Amino acid sequence: MEPASGSRHAGPAARPAAAAVLPAGGSGERLGGATPKQFCTVHGRPLVSYTVRAMERISWISDIIVVVSPENIETMKTIIEKYGHKRVTVVKGGITRHRSIFNGLKVFAESEFSKYLLQKPEVVVIHDAVRPFIEEDILLEVVLAAKEHGAAGAIRPLVSTVVAASADGCLDHSLERARYRASEMPQAFLFDIIYQAYQQCTDYDLDYGTECLHLALKYCKVNAKLIEGTADLWKVTYKRDLYAAESIIKDSLSQQICIITDMKEDAVQAGFLLHESLKSQIKVEAISISLCKSDNHLQNIFSGQCYNFIYIHDKQSAFQETQLQVDMLEKSNIPLFYPVILILVHLNSSENISFSIGMEELTRIKKFAREVKKKNIWVYGLLIHYKDHLPLQEVVNSSAGLIMALIKDRNPELIGVLFSSLVG
Amino acid sequence: MEPASGSRHAGPAARPAAAAVLPAGGSGERLGGATPKQFCTVHGRPLVSYTVRAMERISWISDIIVVVSPENIETMKTIIEKYGHKRVTVVKGGITRHRSIFNGLKVFAESEFSKYLLQKPEVVVIHDAVRPFIEEDILLEVVLAAKEHGAAGAIRPLVSTVVAASADGCLDHSLERARYRASEMPQAFLFDIIYQAYQQCTDYDLDYGTECLHLALKYCKVNAKLIEGTADLWKVTYKRDLYAAESIIKDSLSQQICIITDMKEDAVQAGFLLHESLKSQIKVEAISISLCKSDNHLQNIFSGQCYNFIYIHDKQSAFQETQLQVDMLEKSNIPLFYPVILILVHLNSSENISFSIGMEELTRIKKFAREVKKKNIWVYGLLIHYKDHLPLQEVVNSSAGLIMALIKDRNPELIGVLFSSLVG
Repeated sequence: MEPASGSRHAGPAARPAAAAVLPAGGSGERLGGATPKQFCTVHGRPLVSYTVRAMERISWISDIIVVVSPENIETMKTIIEKYGHKRVTVVKGGITRHRSIFNGLKVFAESEFSKYLLQKPEVVVIHDAVRPFIEEDILLEVVLAAKEHGAAGAIRPLVSTVVAASADGCLDHSLERARYRASEMPQAFLFDIIYQAYQQCTDYDLDYGTECLHLALKYCKVNAKLIEGTADLWKVTYKRDLYAAESIIKDSLSQQICIITDMKEDAVQAGFLLHESLKSQIKVEAISISLCKSDNHLQNIFSGQCYNFIYIHDKQSAFQETQLQVDMLEKSNIPLFYPVILILVHLNSSENISFSIGMEELTRIKKFAREVKKKNIWVYGLLIHYKDHLPLQEVVNSSAGLIMALIKDRNPELIGVLFSSLVG
Repeated sequence: MEPASGSRHAGPAARPAAAAVLPAGGSGERLGGATPKQFCTVHGRPLVSYTVRAMERISWISDIIVVVSPENIETMKTIIEKYGHKRVTVVKGGITRHRSIFNGLKVFAESEFSKYLLQKPEVVVIHDAVRPFIEEDILLEVVLAAKEHGAAGAIRPLVSTVVAASADGCLDHSLERARYRASEMPQAFLFDIIYQAYQQCTDYDLDYGTECLHLALKYCKVNAKLIEGTADLWKVTYKRDLYAAESIIKDSLSQQICIITDMKEDAVQAGFLLHESLKSQIKVEAISISLCKSDNHLQNIFSGQCYNFIYIHDKQSAFQETQLQVDMLEKSNIPLFYPVILILVHLNSSENISFSIGMEELTRIKKFAREVKKKNIWVYGLLIHYKDHLPLQEVVNSSAGLIMALIKDRNPELIGVLFSSLVG
């Protein structure tokens, strides 16, 4: 989702100069909710921010035009500011999709928009704000094809047969599925082609049409190149699609974990064993340190794409050391886009049949968690009890499932809760 | 998802006699996994079982034929036995979808299948095993239309524009979206019509076709009635659809909660306040009893569609009473289809700055949870600490979010874990 920048395909020479127009003016009727789908939040962040982020990570996209309906202009500007999006211009949309896209294109071509000072791109990408999982590879492929053919668009196989109805609501004919494709996004065009098409098209086209490739064909005689896209180009349309998007993002945030231990032998040993236990399901970095700000290895991890941290300690109170991690994380900007999970694991092998947890301790976890939640870092406490005679490996294996579950769930309601689990 | 039986639309006279054929022979390539999608589990149960369950709840469907590929016949039979599905016959599929459906239909018509003794239905429903969210309303509408017109099928608006490609992979033309529909399932046919169509159709149809409505039109001149279906008819095709199905089912299991309290005043009071706190987001039944088997009210809840139980007590150990609930739940068959959540809530208002939880107590929760997990009942422990001077309402409100989160998450990894949360 957040790949290393730069394309695997193209050297700098092959990279096109392109701009992107993201129509985001839809009303989201099909979602059945009051909030248009592009502004629905997934893990607390509006969907449109995910799509903008995917675009702004691509260095050869010079400008990103987001077209929203007049009542959402302020909302959109707030989103851009909050998440620090760069190279984005917000433009007022029209009453239909085509009119909105046309408005977006005008920013590059009409003197009335000259205050924006945007340079006309050779190629313009058109992509829906509600397709957040766009990757650079497919985008580059579409853009290069547009450069060659004048227009290009991603397609997908049809999931259902397409039928035509007669006037009385009965089947007239069905289309042979193999001959047709679903037209998806992204699409790309030589700017002059698509702009000319929009300038020439009729009001009927602007009001009832939906397909940009069709306009390029009809008014500029350009047969767009069709590029087979991947399944992740799909459009968030229904409520179930929001659920799916949420799960996909959760999955992608659960790809990497960093295990940090204090210097005590038991904790170091447990960290090592946890690494062994988890490494088949997730990429693990494990480090044993008494934290210090100058630690380069940890700095590297913090500047990477790791959203999950485990801190194993054998003290009940480890907040001072943890505070250093929190400070480093905050500086890294990682928690800006996604919540970061921090699990404080305390191993307790007390032989006493009864043991104490101080109310004070629970108070401190709660207070600490509440404080760092403001920085989008979510703290959970995990207290693993085990009998001394148990092999530590068994204790760790039993806890690994719980740790993975907390990471995968990313549940804000569990922030500041202390989980007590007994192994054995 | 599990509506009260019987249809809101039709009196017994209007109910058709119908059978259903569920093609479930697909290989699930598009899902990108080795397991065909109809056998992928959602909350531990294979998808096909959800679809069969949706069908078997409809009293006017006499027989359900599930057509699976030869290598999955035993798997399917095991599923039917495990979940106690009724009126289901498993039939060996062919190498394509049409051949599988044809095999399913033969059970009603050919003497070689006479050992099954299934009576030929007037109307036959064809429905994908991977569309689990089928409701009786739409099914009845399609079946009644089939009775009148000979054939009928559910349709949905197109989500994307459909395009035709030329031989060189470029756009040839795009279809006007408003004129076409996606053909979905269920479909229904007068049995004699669709059977005749299959008997007459060519090998090419059987090998490359996918659309039953098309066969009825081509070979029997029947123009199927098209019925606008709801969004929940969608087909589980990609991995994201499994995610969506999982979330939809979680949602539907989180519609109702039953709060049970022991006779102690604090617990009764907390139960009442929790009821107040939750009732705007979920249907709540609250009862205060020392559990006894003869309690009719509780019996009614257990025989309903409630999958979430909260037991509030002021003893650390409440397993004996809880065991009675577990026994009643087990008898009710509710946990057969979905895991039932049981949260043991213990309110602790000890003024001591430090308090003890016995290791013994944690051991007992763990052991109890492990035992009842076998019955598909998932036990979580929740220990709410609060200072005596706090209003109970505040304590309860703070805990309500955590309780809802545990219910909505339904996370098997958290079974037997004791959650300690501090309010105040």
